[in-house]
Amino acid sequence: MHSILPRAVRELSQELTRLPGIGPKTAQRLAVYLLRQSPSDVGRLSDTIKNLHQSVHVCSSCFNLADGAVCAVCRDEKRDTSLLCIVEDPLDVEAIERTGSFQGLYHVLGGVLSPLDGVGVKQLTFAELFERLVSGAFQEIIIALDHTMESEATARHITSHMPDGSIKVTRLARGLPTGGDIEFADALTLSAALSGRKTV
Amino acid sequence: MHSILPRAVRELSQELTRLPGIGPKTAQRLAVYLLRQSPSDVGRLSDTIKNLHQSVHVCSSCFNLADGAVCAVCRDEKRDTSLLCIVEDPLDVEAIERTGSFQGLYHVLGGVLSPLDGVGVKQLTFAELFERLVSGAFQEIIIALDHTMESEATARHITSHMPDGSIKVTRLARGLPTGGDIEFADALTLSAALSGRKTV
Repeated sequence: MHSILPRAVRELSQELTRLPGIGPKTAQRLAVYLLRQSPSDVGRLSDTIKNLHQSVHVCSSCFNLADGAVCAVCRDEKRDTSLLCIVEDPLDVEAIERTGSFQGLYHVLGGVLSPLDGVGVKQLTFAELFERLVSGAFQEIIIALDHTMESEATARHITSHMPDGSIKVTRLARGLPTGGDIEFADALTLSAALSGRKTV
Repeated sequence: MHSILPRAVRELSQELTRLPGIGPKTAQRLAVYLLRQSPSDVGRLSDTIKNLHQSVHVCSSCFNLADGAVCAVCRDEKRDTSLLCIVEDPLDVEAIERTGSFQGLYHVLGGVLSPLDGVGVKQLTFAELFERLVSGAFQEIIIALDHTMESEATARHITSHMPDGSIKVTRLARGLPTGGDIEFADALTLSAALSGRKTV
């Protein structure tokens, strides 16, 4: 596309379009928006991006994002070490923490099984998960993955490789979202809500 | 909002939410996405942002964005110096250049009159515009502003302050967009298309 924008604006636009959800037009608009901000504000943005990799670590125990070697959850001695919640990525941990309804520990898989995208068993943190299950004192693991094909395969891989013992395995409930309208629910959600119905 | 994300991720999310169209959730997702990229890719993004202000200049003649003191359009000796197109911001210049249908020069106002937002006559490049109109050899100026209240007021300010002489003032045609459906056109657009109808 022919562009008469200055080279620096075009270069920044190009970098920004690599980000998820940002197309060429949004990228140009963001670049021109940044130009209108004070150099010190823009410098701060640039610095926080630059510092990202060196400031953020991966928790050596649960693979959540961490400020140091161990994440905030694993460091917290008040957590219930008999409960383990298995999630796909660190933003899922963030979402569950936001509910305030879970006091156990986490294990971040780093993705779900997706052979077509080159994500197999070795690309995820299964080995470390099963090691934790063997050496830990977990009484229940909660598989908190969404309900896609890949997640189902991932959940199956976990349940079929569970160490012998009495660890209970649960999954998040399926059903209508709060505020959701039956009329607009898709068939799979609605049938899950029906088969999972509860006595009141 | 309580967050257990590392400090650096939270700081970057906060910086990103200052950008137009980016909410807290998108910001977190972008930050975690950047963490997954290679440090060299992320470093390049950081550097292009940092270099933005020192690499980009404002054209001393038309206030378009420029690599040097004068922008690519004003530097181009093949442009028609009898035609001046007045636009709100540099992305409008980019959009018009992309059509390949305009060979004249531009004048970038830097916004439209909007007293409620603190944008008055002095905040825009009106003085420089009228100076160009007096000293230049323009035969026609095209007011290429959209059709909002603020743009209409801005257009009126230009027409009522035109220097004496024989400069023709035009505005962009109003009517149905290409591919637009009469059925879905709003009343103002449709009535503009009707009153601007052309003999075939």
